[in-house]
Amino acid sequence: MKPPTRKDEIIKTAAKLFKEKGYSAVTMRDLASEMGIKAASLYNHIKSKQEILKEIIISLAEEFTKGLQDIQKSNLSNIEKLQEIVKLHVSITSQNTYGMASLNNDWMHLEDNRDYYLKLRYNYENEFRNIIVKGIKNNEIISENEDVMLFSILSTLRSLYLWIPKKEDLDPEELSRQLSQVLINGINKKIN
Amino acid sequence: MKPPTRKDEIIKTAAKLFKEKGYSAVTMRDLASEMGIKAASLYNHIKSKQEILKEIIISLAEEFTKGLQDIQKSNLSNIEKLQEIVKLHVSITSQNTYGMASLNNDWMHLEDNRDYYLKLRYNYENEFRNIIVKGIKNNEIISENEDVMLFSILSTLRSLYLWIPKKEDLDPEELSRQLSQVLINGINKKIN
Repeated sequence: MKPPTRKDEIIKTAAKLFKEKGYSAVTMRDLASEMGIKAASLYNHIKSKQEILKEIIISLAEEFTKGLQDIQKSNLSNIEKLQEIVKLHVSITSQNTYGMASLNNDWMHLEDNRDYYLKLRYNYENEFRNIIVKGIKNNEIISENEDVMLFSILSTLRSLYLWIPKKEDLDPEELSRQLSQVLINGINKKIN
Repeated sequence: MKPPTRKDEIIKTAAKLFKEKGYSAVTMRDLASEMGIKAASLYNHIKSKQEILKEIIISLAEEFTKGLQDIQKSNLSNIEKLQEIVKLHVSITSQNTYGMASLNNDWMHLEDNRDYYLKLRYNYENEFRNIIVKGIKNNEIISENEDVMLFSILSTLRSLYLWIPKKEDLDPEELSRQLSQVLINGINKKIN
């Protein structure tokens, strides 16, 4: 791990402010004041609030995309791939709950990068659905509507940021196991 | 069913505008213009944007509270109670997706009624958790962390408003059955 740069600290503090006050209400002046520096020196590191938002959201979206690509390259069964996706969400969310809040609440404020974000999101949902569809064909997953399964699992995983900060002493391994039990066993054909 | 009053129409149109533009960005003038009436005549029916928000959110929160109380009074098993809660969410959400969007996105803009809303929400979650805890004690539900189960089921049910409008030809009975399969069978001890 590289030590965080000033720019990293700015981005982290901004994500916290966006969560507390909403993206639209936060000014570069608020951000400077929260960091205890002058607004002018902020601009040595970052051009605009929009650039910060892009850094937060696009880097998270690319992290999810990369994680899912790695899972897809593996030789795991489809049920195991779903379990790995649960771990991916718990891991990314527990490391960056403010960033995940911003991803969920503020993506619509993206300007130049909005289409790119939506493309990543669309592709992610498609790959996720493919795993479910293959699992059904392969007799690993019960034959239910794939969109209901996709939506149920993703809704929970996308809401983790609301909930992880409330859990004290979070153990990501144990939480992933519990979530897999609750979210994936209901569709696992070997169990049902 | 009573025919909708002018006030009902105002509230419905407002919920749609809140979803499209965000509560803060909508003015009483926008609302009048969307309805094709003069702003002055809006005020014959409704005092303020805040009153509209209260009507949307509190009436929905009370509908959920009432629905859960009825389920609690029944002689159903705890698993069956959870299945009825799924139906309750599908039914309320499919009848009022804009209102549910407002409930989810705009509750923090409530002024005088915010504490009342939060009390209803807190009690709802508590009653829901009680059903899960009783189900575990009664050997109907697998012995997993009750908050993980509560959170997983509620996250999906609370996100239904994002997803129901995309489904054409929605059949609430069939959607409830599918959701129960995916969300509840994973924790049903008879199946696992």
